[in-house]
Amino acid sequence: MSPQAKLLAGVELGGTKCVCILGSGPDDVRALERLPTGEREETLRQIEAVLDRWRHQHGPARALGIASFGPVDLRADSSTYGFITSTTKAGWRGTDVAQRLGRRLGIPVGFDTDVNGAALAEARWGAAVGLDDFAYVTVGTGIGVGTIVRGRPIFGMNHTELGHIRVARRPGDTFAGICSFHGDCIEGLASGPAIEARAGAPASKLPPDHPAWEFVAHGLAQLVHTMVLTTAPQRIFLGGGVMSAQAHLFERIRQELKRSLNGYVEAPQLEQGLPQFIVPPGLGTMAGPLGALALALDAANPVAAHPTPVATAATR
Amino acid sequence: MSPQAKLLAGVELGGTKCVCILGSGPDDVRALERLPTGEREETLRQIEAVLDRWRHQHGPARALGIASFGPVDLRADSSTYGFITSTTKAGWRGTDVAQRLGRRLGIPVGFDTDVNGAALAEARWGAAVGLDDFAYVTVGTGIGVGTIVRGRPIFGMNHTELGHIRVARRPGDTFAGICSFHGDCIEGLASGPAIEARAGAPASKLPPDHPAWEFVAHGLAQLVHTMVLTTAPQRIFLGGGVMSAQAHLFERIRQELKRSLNGYVEAPQLEQGLPQFIVPPGLGTMAGPLGALALALDAANPVAAHPTPVATAATR
Repeated sequence: MSPQAKLLAGVELGGTKCVCILGSGPDDVRALERLPTGEREETLRQIEAVLDRWRHQHGPARALGIASFGPVDLRADSSTYGFITSTTKAGWRGTDVAQRLGRRLGIPVGFDTDVNGAALAEARWGAAVGLDDFAYVTVGTGIGVGTIVRGRPIFGMNHTELGHIRVARRPGDTFAGICSFHGDCIEGLASGPAIEARAGAPASKLPPDHPAWEFVAHGLAQLVHTMVLTTAPQRIFLGGGVMSAQAHLFERIRQELKRSLNGYVEAPQLEQGLPQFIVPPGLGTMAGPLGALALALDAANPVAAHPTPVATAATR
Repeated sequence: MSPQAKLLAGVELGGTKCVCILGSGPDDVRALERLPTGEREETLRQIEAVLDRWRHQHGPARALGIASFGPVDLRADSSTYGFITSTTKAGWRGTDVAQRLGRRLGIPVGFDTDVNGAALAEARWGAAVGLDDFAYVTVGTGIGVGTIVRGRPIFGMNHTELGHIRVARRPGDTFAGICSFHGDCIEGLASGPAIEARAGAPASKLPPDHPAWEFVAHGLAQLVHTMVLTTAPQRIFLGGGVMSAQAHLFERIRQELKRSLNGYVEAPQLEQGLPQFIVPPGLGTMAGPLGALALALDAANPVAAHPTPVATAATR
């Protein structure tokens, strides 16, 4: 295959920044550009300008992948397929992303949540190679979870949104939470902005012995407790800015999880395998943009192991 | 195929009673016997006696399905595959069920949780025909959930166990819960025995205006909130003794769910489709025994759409 025939474009549309990427995988990134996520029309125009410029410089890509913050509409039969829907991000509710970029570029478009994209990238190139059932969690501006069951993201009435489950509160924790929809859902309790609201300083700057971490670790362990009982992943990857800045959280979450499950689930992952069960992802800050490339790859090859909505529309 | 070639045996092993069934489906039940679930050795001997008698009367079955209360070990590579493991039921921890009955009968054995079995039966013969992604919940002696993703039960490190998630408590609810592992997990808060402990009278006898129902409906709505965000089922079936005795709970749970999600997930199932989203199952009290037959059918036909562990051992 010629180098151009393998060329894929990707957009990671994040809550604070967007990353445009051109290439075919982690060892073949030909271009990468970061933009701040601002007002929606301006942001989408900047993304289009980057993609247009790359098309002139490198020729057309085979497919475009878009890994977006959510919630997004992934229902293939919906008139708002490819839109960002009821987001907590101001000004972005009801924004067409995938239909618009697909029309402009005229190539197949793979579209999914940022965390489903990152999970698929980890499965293809990162720490989840060989795993069929696992989950990728990001704890940053928000909390998102991509859950892979039998090699593909779960999809029912729509994609999943574990960041907005309501969890049991730690006794004594009276913080009201900051989620504009739910107050003290797990994103409202333990995302980066929630930690800052709780502690009065950015999550990355808090010392490991700050009392806020007890509450944050408890909340994140409750998220993991729920994941163990609802989808039983073989491994759970915890990434995002908060986790990478505060590595002590891993062991705290493991211990809180063990206390919370209290021996109910018998599995090696929860006993001697616990240190290998809750771990950092493998692709670091590249998980997002590579997630977009993984979605592009699936859109370009609809028979691939991880078909995107483009490929499975007929079976839904 | 001769009538005998279609013959399947099933055992629903429940927390309070066991049902042995012989036949090939809901329209062909040739024998059915109920036994109380007592001391484990005595109970298993009584089940064996029924299966032995049927073999003499009707000839050998093609396969046996066992739908058991749990947790059970479904890991194909485990030495305790087919065992009941860390159950809350006294005296049953570490009980070999599937290996023992398989050796005795010398036929293929399909083994899964009672709720996964019931969900597969609903998909094959009941209210879930045509649905690929749905969940079956029972609220009775315990709370159990069978979650079907792309036609098959979720399976990762082991089966799922949603009855033991810890949920956000309703303000003012100080009931400590009765789960021996977790106290106030959802089973500890809203199962039949929990309702009885809370209200001082059996759940089936409480009037619809008893104040306990506010707390129970809130807890069950939190379970459903979590299900919507973790596996996004196309439909959720709520069955079991508590739901069938207290039909007012359906609308209460729908309204509590709507309040709790607060418009975050945009899907027809949560808007005009809500009355069809949270509904009773179709097979009633036969869901359990027919679940065992559905597992037997999959064990007899390993290429079927819903392979059991017997059929998928090689791929795990």
